[in-house]
Amino acid sequence: MEISQLGEFGLIDRLTQEFPIRNSSTLKGVGDDAAVMEYKDTRVLVTTDLLLENVHFDLTYVPLMHLGYKSAVVNFSDIYAMGGTPRQITVGLGVSSRFTVEHLEQLYAGIRRACEIYNVDLVGGDTSASHSGLVISITCIGDAPADDIVMRDGAKDTDLICVSGDLGAAYMGLQALEREKVASAGQSDFQPDFAGKEYLIERQLKPEARKDIIGFLRKEGIHPTAMMDVSDGLSSELMHICKQSNTGCRVYEDRIPIDYQTAIMAEELNMNLVTAALNGGEDYELLFTVPLTDHERIKKIPGIKLIGHITKPELGCALVTRDGAEIALKAQGWNSLAGDREDETAPADGTEGTAEDAPGASEAE
Amino acid sequence: MEISQLGEFGLIDRLTQEFPIRNSSTLKGVGDDAAVMEYKDTRVLVTTDLLLENVHFDLTYVPLMHLGYKSAVVNFSDIYAMGGTPRQITVGLGVSSRFTVEHLEQLYAGIRRACEIYNVDLVGGDTSASHSGLVISITCIGDAPADDIVMRDGAKDTDLICVSGDLGAAYMGLQALEREKVASAGQSDFQPDFAGKEYLIERQLKPEARKDIIGFLRKEGIHPTAMMDVSDGLSSELMHICKQSNTGCRVYEDRIPIDYQTAIMAEELNMNLVTAALNGGEDYELLFTVPLTDHERIKKIPGIKLIGHITKPELGCALVTRDGAEIALKAQGWNSLAGDREDETAPADGTEGTAEDAPGASEAE
Repeated sequence: MEISQLGEFGLIDRLTQEFPIRNSSTLKGVGDDAAVMEYKDTRVLVTTDLLLENVHFDLTYVPLMHLGYKSAVVNFSDIYAMGGTPRQITVGLGVSSRFTVEHLEQLYAGIRRACEIYNVDLVGGDTSASHSGLVISITCIGDAPADDIVMRDGAKDTDLICVSGDLGAAYMGLQALEREKVASAGQSDFQPDFAGKEYLIERQLKPEARKDIIGFLRKEGIHPTAMMDVSDGLSSELMHICKQSNTGCRVYEDRIPIDYQTAIMAEELNMNLVTAALNGGEDYELLFTVPLTDHERIKKIPGIKLIGHITKPELGCALVTRDGAEIALKAQGWNSLAGDREDETAPADGTEGTAEDAPGASEAE
Repeated sequence: MEISQLGEFGLIDRLTQEFPIRNSSTLKGVGDDAAVMEYKDTRVLVTTDLLLENVHFDLTYVPLMHLGYKSAVVNFSDIYAMGGTPRQITVGLGVSSRFTVEHLEQLYAGIRRACEIYNVDLVGGDTSASHSGLVISITCIGDAPADDIVMRDGAKDTDLICVSGDLGAAYMGLQALEREKVASAGQSDFQPDFAGKEYLIERQLKPEARKDIIGFLRKEGIHPTAMMDVSDGLSSELMHICKQSNTGCRVYEDRIPIDYQTAIMAEELNMNLVTAALNGGEDYELLFTVPLTDHERIKKIPGIKLIGHITKPELGCALVTRDGAEIALKAQGWNSLAGDREDETAPADGTEGTAEDAPGASEAE
């Protein structure tokens, strides 16, 4: 069905009809000039993400349902990274005429699934025509008791640096998808082969936010001194924490958690594995620091790896390699403005895509 | 300066540095995974708007500073339309490589000016490369005491229908700008002539949100039964209120407030003036209903016009013409998905731009 058959308001009604209200803080959702919420005893957290076609996602291999799911989850991840609980989202959507109502229903099915799993309410949005591909803008509102909120600026000298899960897999998943896209060019009956790369593909297409880790930390009574989610790559995020906390850090190459599928893929592509793990991005794991005294308690939490420690600021931020050498970390990150994912799709007029931004060029390699 | 010289984080630092925090509810603004706010005694309002180049604005005649100002103000308008006060915004920005740092500084200068005038804090955002023109996504957070919030669903039979300011001017301003754009095509030394149309141009390029009206209503102790802002055209908005309140309405052609510049422009273009005022959109005036007993108090407020009354639902929504005929209102509005502004710029594959959506085709004409 063409979108014009429903019109803006008909479309919004159709897409938002199966979103029940789950949170008591949501008083009025979709359907007025603004949503209405109430947060008497908690602080309010707000984060926003803009996802643009062919910059953040490529619809030749990203299913719309996964895209909807991921678009919501990456915002939830930011709320968890503050120590909070996501409660509401608004969805701004720009759609070009090649999209049908059924396409948008798939996208919303993914958003709905994410809202179900993470217990979040859809409370508003804005839907518009676009002349240039799909635009998704999601804002997430969350809350947290004042004492639970963790910023980036509280890390102290000698604090332990912890990270959940493993790193670099989503980046390797992207490489696998891009490689199959190139291989399939022009072949309508092409069957991509992702055998042995299922984890990488899932990490790229359908990441999860680490709600579970926040639960474990609360249960163990651990209050991180600084925390953020790893969306731009570990190296970049560590430097944010150290800059805002006015500290340095040491992370140990042999402590960085990497899945075996990530390692195999790096070998296939002849890429430096640690560089991919440090700078790949889109991991949506939690990076946080805790006082030394929490050492024993941190060990009780499944899936948390202790990767280094905070230092005095004059020591700078460095990776300690397996042979004991120190290499300065570089705040490179997954910088979409510098276009490090854009090598193949950069516009002809481009300021985008420089060799310096390729993961292989990291100083930490 | 090219954006790639600064990188994403450098750019964000530069653009957001001159935004002081003005509201006590803002505890932490730009610079963490999420902004932190506190709203103990008031309810929280959230609204979001997506603005896309060549759909919502045309940079051949829209100055970036005005665009920034308008992008913020249209969100403030939604918060006022709930009876609230805007407090914070987040700004999502997608920029293609033809934009320089200076361009974005102009855009942010407009956003900053809007924040100054309306006393709002910039608390977050997301900045990204775009392969397809400028994308602006603004989310506004506001607050209101529970008793002050006005939804769209409270209008009652016999309530008076009121509107602030005048209608149709922004739409006529757009027509004037489009006409000069066509006239100037290919002429580098073309000087557009907007003499006698200054008000129309200003209403289109630099609208204001009606903070003053909310202040007057509070001062007079008037609590509207339903309210919304006129962004999609009076006709569409009236039908939203009537649908959600389960009522009908009668509005009187000779009561609709229209500026003389709007009338002159409509004559020049041989357009039906009332249709433009009913369906033009982007007026950002407040449309609200009050009980009959507020009649005398409403008259004390400058710039409010009483344009009709709410009826029982079975009477439907109609315009009463000067000669007493009743014409059913049509929920047409400024529907960007149907593309009524897109006649000249619709893509070749377009489902966009149908004759039915042209203002002249309204049933209320």
